[in-house]
Amino acid sequence: MELKEIGEFGFIERFSPEFKSLLTKNVFGIGDDCAILPMNDTEDLLVTTDMLIEDIHFLREKITPWQLGYKSVAVNLSDLAAMGATPIGTFLSIAIPPGVDVEYLDELMKGYHAISDRYQTPLLGGDTTKSVKHLAINVCAIGKCPKGQAKLRSGAQAGDVVCVTGSLGDSAGGLQVLLNQLESNEDTYYLLKKHHQPEPRIELGETLVNLNRVHSMMDISDGIASDLKHILKASGKAAKIELNKLPISDQLKRVSQQQNWQPEELAVGGGEDYELLFTLESSLLEPLQRLFLEQFGQTVFPIGVIEKGEPEIHWVKEGKKVQFGKTGFNHFQ
Amino acid sequence: MELKEIGEFGFIERFSPEFKSLLTKNVFGIGDDCAILPMNDTEDLLVTTDMLIEDIHFLREKITPWQLGYKSVAVNLSDLAAMGATPIGTFLSIAIPPGVDVEYLDELMKGYHAISDRYQTPLLGGDTTKSVKHLAINVCAIGKCPKGQAKLRSGAQAGDVVCVTGSLGDSAGGLQVLLNQLESNEDTYYLLKKHHQPEPRIELGETLVNLNRVHSMMDISDGIASDLKHILKASGKAAKIELNKLPISDQLKRVSQQQNWQPEELAVGGGEDYELLFTLESSLLEPLQRLFLEQFGQTVFPIGVIEKGEPEIHWVKEGKKVQFGKTGFNHFQ
Repeated sequence: MELKEIGEFGFIERFSPEFKSLLTKNVFGIGDDCAILPMNDTEDLLVTTDMLIEDIHFLREKITPWQLGYKSVAVNLSDLAAMGATPIGTFLSIAIPPGVDVEYLDELMKGYHAISDRYQTPLLGGDTTKSVKHLAINVCAIGKCPKGQAKLRSGAQAGDVVCVTGSLGDSAGGLQVLLNQLESNEDTYYLLKKHHQPEPRIELGETLVNLNRVHSMMDISDGIASDLKHILKASGKAAKIELNKLPISDQLKRVSQQQNWQPEELAVGGGEDYELLFTLESSLLEPLQRLFLEQFGQTVFPIGVIEKGEPEIHWVKEGKKVQFGKTGFNHFQ
Repeated sequence: MELKEIGEFGFIERFSPEFKSLLTKNVFGIGDDCAILPMNDTEDLLVTTDMLIEDIHFLREKITPWQLGYKSVAVNLSDLAAMGATPIGTFLSIAIPPGVDVEYLDELMKGYHAISDRYQTPLLGGDTTKSVKHLAINVCAIGKCPKGQAKLRSGAQAGDVVCVTGSLGDSAGGLQVLLNQLESNEDTYYLLKKHHQPEPRIELGETLVNLNRVHSMMDISDGIASDLKHILKASGKAAKIELNKLPISDQLKRVSQQQNWQPEELAVGGGEDYELLFTLESSLLEPLQRLFLEQFGQTVFPIGVIEKGEPEIHWVKEGKKVQFGKTGFNHFQ
């Protein structure tokens, strides 16, 4: 049987039940953005890992080595942020093909160091090896958060407001800029940068982890159409999302208009935004918006609500139900 | 500049000093088999990671998927054993090329589960992705050991006895069996199995970590000619190693005789033995040998002594100095 018939999650479901019996008390393994392990009386340990493969996740001639180093760490720190953790350190495995020279690697490690320095997260170890043809990078990141407080996907409650921490679809737009070789201007540069150099929402996660009325959280790596479903499945809830409330940047709107893209579809299905997606009690929305604005200059965008029901997303545009499929949004008749 | 001009360790030396300033108190990063981090009042956390790349570390048609799954975990658990740690869990990143089907992956995960079960070490998370051509596997393993007790490479003292926990060169012999397509018999099967399915020395490491008179330790992944030098450099000491004392299996001796191999050279330069290499106060040797034999049916092999001096290995055979170079051992004139 070919892997594409069952997909990544189908593969994981084949083996993960067997490993569950090996779990000890208070250890949470496969199924959230990070694993959670007891560390001491006040803190839990969180661990995550992500692999970037050349010609699958990046094109070596399109992303600078500095950005690749930065992004390798960023996508992992975003998984820590997704549960509210503070980073402790990272581990880098890198498989280097012929033709990748020392100068390239120096630049890659400068990007790696820049984000490590920004989040005070040391590189603690790793593995360096040869590869036949493609550059492969694996980063494992560890972090900590207050004991028992890590935000899970499974806590969403009916009535919760669904929020995101920033504009959606910019990274997917950046990928389109790259694939369609659009000419460089301020707007396309902005989208490309969002694609190549995402910023993990560490400080926001560290704040949200302490708020009991935040019930569930993850980061947006595959697009909310896919990611929000993980929250809904884990929580046994439905959601209603209003397309008009999706935060879409002016840059993406302008480029989309020129290129005849549908920005809502990039926002919903594109992925790699690395914003936080979370649900909270509606009473917390306004105080949180004020707090984030004052403390971080950061807007919190409510985009819908959690409802009772089967784990499905009900998309709404101007009061009407729409359906999101492989070809984008379709109005119901 | 091409990477081969400076090598893996040259590359690591280029960036590791910059990351040292990010280390916090009691955190040990790059330079030992694992990183060490404070966990709680009684235990430290140890973390290691290793990558296996198709056509660099293994040939997909030569190793069974079960063995590949087993070995992916084994080489990481061996790094934990190398410092005396008890495994807590592993994280698997796997990049899957077209042509690797679900049945292959099921077998791989069965091997992964077998060793996880044996050492009660759950798979806690990971990343599954596509690859263009080559199978790439990264495992990150975490473990714990008594606070401040992890065995480092840097503790060797003059007068220490240098010991190993099992026969050397079998895995390198197995690789030769494979590359030369030797015919299958009990001896070649034994060597192949040692190459494809190494056993991490977890229980031995867990015992050695509690013995203060064991001063330094690591595992043998590149061969003692290379690995022991890490201990010598970290400790600022020299070593005298007696070739006649290297434990060499009867199987390797017999196949070597038939094939005109030099088993001592495989033992010293071959690597992937995943035995423990450690140094201890000479007064502990006999009691430890008795303890290991009684408790584990395990022989401890003393192969030489630590001496004052530049970090070099002095090889001795039948009382005479010999030199180990790229073409093997040469007698001094």
